[in-house]
Amino acid sequence: MTSQSSTAFAPASIGNVGVGFDVLGLAIAGAGDRVTVSRSDNAGIAITSIRTSDGEELTDLSRDADKNTASIAAAALWQAQGGEGGLTIDIEKGVPLQSGMGSSAASAVAGVVATNALLDVPLPTEALLDYAIEGEAFASGGRHADNVAPSLLGGLVLCPPGLDAVRLPTPDTVASVLVHPELRVNTAESRAGLSATVTREQWIRQQGLLAGFVTATFSGDLSLMRRSLKDLIIEPQRAPSVSCFESVSRAAIEAGAIGCSLSGSGPSIFALIENEQAERLASAMVDACEAQGIDCQSWISPLSSPGAALED
Amino acid sequence: MTSQSSTAFAPASIGNVGVGFDVLGLAIAGAGDRVTVSRSDNAGIAITSIRTSDGEELTDLSRDADKNTASIAAAALWQAQGGEGGLTIDIEKGVPLQSGMGSSAASAVAGVVATNALLDVPLPTEALLDYAIEGEAFASGGRHADNVAPSLLGGLVLCPPGLDAVRLPTPDTVASVLVHPELRVNTAESRAGLSATVTREQWIRQQGLLAGFVTATFSGDLSLMRRSLKDLIIEPQRAPSVSCFESVSRAAIEAGAIGCSLSGSGPSIFALIENEQAERLASAMVDACEAQGIDCQSWISPLSSPGAALED
Repeated sequence: MTSQSSTAFAPASIGNVGVGFDVLGLAIAGAGDRVTVSRSDNAGIAITSIRTSDGEELTDLSRDADKNTASIAAAALWQAQGGEGGLTIDIEKGVPLQSGMGSSAASAVAGVVATNALLDVPLPTEALLDYAIEGEAFASGGRHADNVAPSLLGGLVLCPPGLDAVRLPTPDTVASVLVHPELRVNTAESRAGLSATVTREQWIRQQGLLAGFVTATFSGDLSLMRRSLKDLIIEPQRAPSVSCFESVSRAAIEAGAIGCSLSGSGPSIFALIENEQAERLASAMVDACEAQGIDCQSWISPLSSPGAALED
Repeated sequence: MTSQSSTAFAPASIGNVGVGFDVLGLAIAGAGDRVTVSRSDNAGIAITSIRTSDGEELTDLSRDADKNTASIAAAALWQAQGGEGGLTIDIEKGVPLQSGMGSSAASAVAGVVATNALLDVPLPTEALLDYAIEGEAFASGGRHADNVAPSLLGGLVLCPPGLDAVRLPTPDTVASVLVHPELRVNTAESRAGLSATVTREQWIRQQGLLAGFVTATFSGDLSLMRRSLKDLIIEPQRAPSVSCFESVSRAAIEAGAIGCSLSGSGPSIFALIENEQAERLASAMVDACEAQGIDCQSWISPLSSPGAALED
């Protein structure tokens, strides 16, 4: 007998990881979205509820199944794989909205993972990525996998357009710290404001940094990681819209961060750091944020944090 | 007693390796420049001779020590390290001029390696890179290490601006094929003709390909190498000035090349291929070139070809 209902959890994630705009992403631990997909007697796909982790109704997001990343992604998979009958979808948002923590991606990924379990022949995890991207594209204004890929696969993921997403090795000795200031940035709007061109010099320098960072993940060379984890192109364009960025990033670097930049389009800010210094770094970043009069939350995660998973 | 004279050989190289404009280079085997540096009773640095490998006088290059990459690089090292007295320099050009095979870089590297041996306390090889770049910058119109780094260090080298050059791992099963059509391209002029900007989309796609290629070198994933070894930005701008490029590259891909692009600014064309198919690939590329009425030479090299070395 096939299941009537399935629930999946998908973690938040750090898009771009500073150095790899649109092509690099990192899963985090401790925050994520939970989506339950159930067979329905009605045709089509409908959203039944959208709530916070505390069970409160969330009114910021549309219940229209054509306008929600979880249902768009679920529908894309269900229809492509010939799922029979309708579905209802219940969404529990653990990732703050417009936080730069991959909120829309987490919903899309949880949606496809839960839907996949209802198929007669579920697809392998990697094959779900394209469907999750379908959902993500609606929210973010572009087809890029830097949030959905780590949310689905876990860890640090390289996901260039046109190539398969691949998990990069990550040093066990390094953690991520993610700080979410209580501000909102609309990803699609933020993206629309980016310069449409870069100079040849910027391109060469940035791709050199990315290649150096990828090399550092394989060789475990933290010195190279420190020198390469930089965003010369996007961060300068987006940072001015996050009022606390300068203070928080300065605090992070002073506290010894390997690197620090915006998570996705912000306002969240991430840093990488050796494990034993992660608590201290998180405190320094939180203090710097609060000193600007902005409340914030923080998470510390291993670089190899798990991707999405079904729940009982 | 310190040596009175020293000779070094430095190999030709493939700049950019298609996918990594200005930041990736590959040493080749069987072609290179040889530079002999000798102490002199005269002050300053003078070029005594520039000859071909056959011993013929080469009249295309200036004997002015301020206008030759070998002597500029040698002088930069000698002066910075407090070398006493003058030097004379004899250059044997085994790398064709304006070939896209790193001719100016090979001379600069051989010049610094030979000069280094005359210092009271020679520097480690890696420390010679900056001096070689000094020479190369004169010839190429830009400070980039994608020819000098592989010529100095051997193998496949990632050398982004601002980061230390690092040798990437290379699969033993893959060889490079380099074809040099009897045409000339001036690197500095070619560089000046490149577009000063790229679109954000081009930048993202190209840096994704580069990151994928670097990943493939570490993981040994030849399928990923095949999908990532592409130059979307520079090759389309330079290829039209190399009349045989379209035919030769098509022949290479049809013969099963993992990838094929211009070597540096061209006219030379390289391809990567599994070892056992390298001879056949070289023949296909040479045939395609000659069918266009252009003579050519070809070289087959392991990806781990050695860098510069002192000779007895």
